[in-house]
Amino acid sequence: MTSPANTAPIITDVLIIGAGPVGLFAAFEAGVIGLSCQIVDGIERAGGQCIELYPDKPIYDIPAIPMCTARELVDRLVEQCKPFSPPMHLGHRIETVERRDDGKWRARTDKGLTFEATAILISAGNGSFVPQRLQLPEAALLEGHALHYSVPRLADFAGKKVVVAGGGDSALDWALELRSVAQHVTLVHRRNGFSAADSSVEKVRRAIEAREMDFVLGMIAGLNAQGSALESIEIRQIDGSVSLAADQLLVLYGLVSDLGPIAGWGIDMLGGRIAVDTSSYESSVPGIFAAGDIATYPNKQKLILSGFHEASLALRKAYHYAYPDKKRVHIHSSYDARLAERVVASHEA
Amino acid sequence: MTSPANTAPIITDVLIIGAGPVGLFAAFEAGVIGLSCQIVDGIERAGGQCIELYPDKPIYDIPAIPMCTARELVDRLVEQCKPFSPPMHLGHRIETVERRDDGKWRARTDKGLTFEATAILISAGNGSFVPQRLQLPEAALLEGHALHYSVPRLADFAGKKVVVAGGGDSALDWALELRSVAQHVTLVHRRNGFSAADSSVEKVRRAIEAREMDFVLGMIAGLNAQGSALESIEIRQIDGSVSLAADQLLVLYGLVSDLGPIAGWGIDMLGGRIAVDTSSYESSVPGIFAAGDIATYPNKQKLILSGFHEASLALRKAYHYAYPDKKRVHIHSSYDARLAERVVASHEA
Repeated sequence: MTSPANTAPIITDVLIIGAGPVGLFAAFEAGVIGLSCQIVDGIERAGGQCIELYPDKPIYDIPAIPMCTARELVDRLVEQCKPFSPPMHLGHRIETVERRDDGKWRARTDKGLTFEATAILISAGNGSFVPQRLQLPEAALLEGHALHYSVPRLADFAGKKVVVAGGGDSALDWALELRSVAQHVTLVHRRNGFSAADSSVEKVRRAIEAREMDFVLGMIAGLNAQGSALESIEIRQIDGSVSLAADQLLVLYGLVSDLGPIAGWGIDMLGGRIAVDTSSYESSVPGIFAAGDIATYPNKQKLILSGFHEASLALRKAYHYAYPDKKRVHIHSSYDARLAERVVASHEA
Repeated sequence: MTSPANTAPIITDVLIIGAGPVGLFAAFEAGVIGLSCQIVDGIERAGGQCIELYPDKPIYDIPAIPMCTARELVDRLVEQCKPFSPPMHLGHRIETVERRDDGKWRARTDKGLTFEATAILISAGNGSFVPQRLQLPEAALLEGHALHYSVPRLADFAGKKVVVAGGGDSALDWALELRSVAQHVTLVHRRNGFSAADSSVEKVRRAIEAREMDFVLGMIAGLNAQGSALESIEIRQIDGSVSLAADQLLVLYGLVSDLGPIAGWGIDMLGGRIAVDTSSYESSVPGIFAAGDIATYPNKQKLILSGFHEASLALRKAYHYAYPDKKRVHIHSSYDARLAERVVASHEA
């Protein structure tokens, strides 16, 4: 479910940043102990890096699940939190987080959604996955005009001289696809070999033989442009360099992880991770917690099961921020008849 | 699998005390990171208090398992650790633990089995479950002769005047069963109502009506004996007391948890639990770790999932005791092709 941009703040006990396995289980646990929550994730679907990077890879170390794929794990966790229907705002990235005078947090997404929360749980895994960008000073000026890291609309490349850079599945698939609309397609890669499905590699080889596209071995070393209009691309090769005439450059170097704005929220970091204490998984900023791969502490292991534990304990402390007058968080979902009814009702629905 | 009593010590990296969910998952994790282990539990089957106390109760808070019974949880964990075939010594209770001069631990069971281990992980839940005993000074002298807390052999009661005390399933079932061999059976319970299956309660009512057994309402207040031979039992009632002639007394008041010998191993305890640090779940005694309900620390929650995390982190530190020269424990089972082969082979077998 994606929410429309909205200026009225959404009030909640806990704002969960990251809809990967740990964020999903945190939403379940929040429900169990009686906290409301809202989940935000920059990616358009739940599952986090599990789903983005290795959906079909078998996982063996989730307790009591001898083997499952990442996709199955996420499906099971989505099912588990259904009794509480946690609202998910997918495709939203939290940009700013500020503490209000009353101690609550106000967080705002890149699309204008605003949250007011008593506590924030960051379960953002390795951060956002963003395209690996071209490391050239002139690249930023051309981005969105003549330089792209994805293909929102194929029609934008109609009749153009297009250079596709990269050697993975995305680069090969898009180079093949662009033949149908572009005036000319050139594939540029630093090696004379590809990291892609055999069938795609074979199709590319045949397209090159049939002169439906060109292949140039080398690295992009410079972009020549007039304002935001690209004119040519310098390609460095082992024995010199060549210049390729081009209107549009599509760089598909894969995804890299990026903590993004979190790094600027004033939280103590350690080796690119959020430093937390090991009894409540709270960061150096009271009320902001971290669980899963993004959290670090002595002897931290990047196990999904650790993220589940960390989130559960973080939420117990968050409970005391949300309900300072209540002494006890109740302990066992298995002893909670109301929860049992809810779970059963949700599964029968 | 129960091992015979044996004087040659069994050498292992980690001795796991307790074969409940946390001990079983610990055995899996030990296998994943390359540690050998041995599991010991005083109960004759794996599963711990889950299986003893609430085998059919639904559990909702195991991550990625929206609902399962305790029995299913244990079955899944037994399945998960199969690739490593951890040896289990069930029906053995660790009585003594001593540190040897070389820093290793020597542990001995009540049945004479001896282990030598680099590290010990205590995952004993709420401790051993032992029968709740009769709180009378004269009871200890009669125990095993005329006073019993279980029925090893029905024949021992043949031709005797037997008093069965208690109001649960065990008391009712044994009272009914003993009719076939005893000269006379009297059921004694403090209330005129039972906490047992409806069908057993109905059978008992019919047996009392048919004068196949007697029922006496009251509490056992004293035992009259000649040496180890019981003569009569004093029963305190609301309006006085009665004396019952009896040869044998069978007390079935249910199980209570008891930390047992662990409390005497010199480990720092807090509120009847083992105090551990929250990065490696090590106790005050280096090399002895605790995970699950038996461990305590600030913000500890008695969640099964916490035990899984605690055991996993404890084993990483135990690894450094077992292999002080190796720098790294490998991290992800899902990336370990050899483990994958092992798991697949074990499931195909």
